[in-house]
Amino acid sequence: MVATETIFSLENPLFRTYLLHACVLSLKILAMAILTGRYRFKTKTFINPEDAISMKVKVKTDDNVERVRRAHLNDIENIPVFFVVSFAYLMTNPAVGFATMLFRAFTAARFVHTFVYAVVVIPQPARALSWGVGYAITWYMGITSILNLL
Amino acid sequence: MVATETIFSLENPLFRTYLLHACVLSLKILAMAILTGRYRFKTKTFINPEDAISMKVKVKTDDNVERVRRAHLNDIENIPVFFVVSFAYLMTNPAVGFATMLFRAFTAARFVHTFVYAVVVIPQPARALSWGVGYAITWYMGITSILNLL
Amino acid sequence: MVATETIFSLENPLFRTYLLHACVLSLKILAMAILTGRYRFKTKTFINPEDAISMKVKVKTDDNVERVRRAHLNDIENIPVFFVVSFAYLMTNPAVGFATMLFRAFTAARFVHTFVYAVVVIPQPARALSWGVGYAITWYMGITSILNLL
Repeated sequence: MVATETIFSLENPLFRTYLLHACVLSLKILAMAILTGRYRFKTKTFINPEDAISMKVKVKTDDNVERVRRAHLNDIENIPVFFVVSFAYLMTNPAVGFATMLFRAFTAARFVHTFVYAVVVIPQPARALSWGVGYAITWYMGITSILNLL
Repeated sequence: MVATETIFSLENPLFRTYLLHACVLSLKILAMAILTGRYRFKTKTFINPEDAISMKVKVKTDDNVERVRRAHLNDIENIPVFFVVSFAYLMTNPAVGFATMLFRAFTAARFVHTFVYAVVVIPQPARALSWGVGYAITWYMGITSILNLL
Repeated sequence: MVATETIFSLENPLFRTYLLHACVLSLKILAMAILTGRYRFKTKTFINPEDAISMKVKVKTDDNVERVRRAHLNDIENIPVFFVVSFAYLMTNPAVGFATMLFRAFTAARFVHTFVYAVVVIPQPARALSWGVGYAITWYMGITSILNLL
């Protein structure tokens, strides 16, 4: 068994890779607020009366704004779970190249998911596939970690 | 004080238990997507036009789908907070048996919550109680950790 | 480079500060459920039929309840991301005083955000500013961490 102090160290390349992907995904979640704001101002769609009044419009909803909000919620449902599961996965002593590939594929899949869901709407199965890649990777890492811990 | 390197180690049985429950709860959150999908296809209820068109139905909402989505959101509101608070709680040097009992009770309560909320609807106070058990445990661990850190 | 075992230790004052703010923010998220419940009972607004029946009212929505729910969701979108990014930020070996100020400012901003959004509604830009302070701090820590990891 690799000593734990060796795992949680910046001298461990896989821990660096883990933190890097976690930070990129975190900023990606934050960026959803910019995307929502852009659509809200473009379509003058506000959900709070105090915001609508300052823009001299009525409170309303808009399909494109709701679409971005659903993509945002989908991030919130999937990415924090990835943070936890991939943290546990670090403890299974995986091959660095393989684990790095999983982290990259998950991260890329989440960016593609948002793009095809809320930036340029691309017909199914684009959204299902991009969501599915991240979903399958998280399940794989979760089950591997649980088997390692039992 | 227990040395920190002894805490974040797979040789520490409580850290193993923590990671195990965190992974199980993570996969439980992921499983909510399967439950939502099952209800969506069963009732042909889709929220995105591109999904509805491919099933030759109109966009609509359904009470059972919304119920699963609320259970999912309730997980998202409660489980990531548990990950953080129980991580800090590990540092308070709790009795292993007692801490393990808290982790198990929280995890069981979240499964029961989803079951009575979104699988077989059981009248109140079933949902309130199952939510309350997890909620009380998280508050307890959070306050204990804060007192330990001050 | 500071040895990692020195970072993740209660003897490291910044790690203590990190855990303390993470716990306070976690309990703050939990407290949103109390705020939602208070408004639900005050306005007799319930979203689940089994809850409405027990109070002898019909299922309905209420602007104040929705407002608290949006503040809650805003926490869920911003605070778990902060947990991850500030964890990575600990590894950049920041000045303790400066990092502590960032953690305090983020935490204070989130409390102010909820207060002006859902307790006493204060006209814009109160909500935008309080949200923006936390948002800018998270971006700053995220970018700093990524540059440190590359």
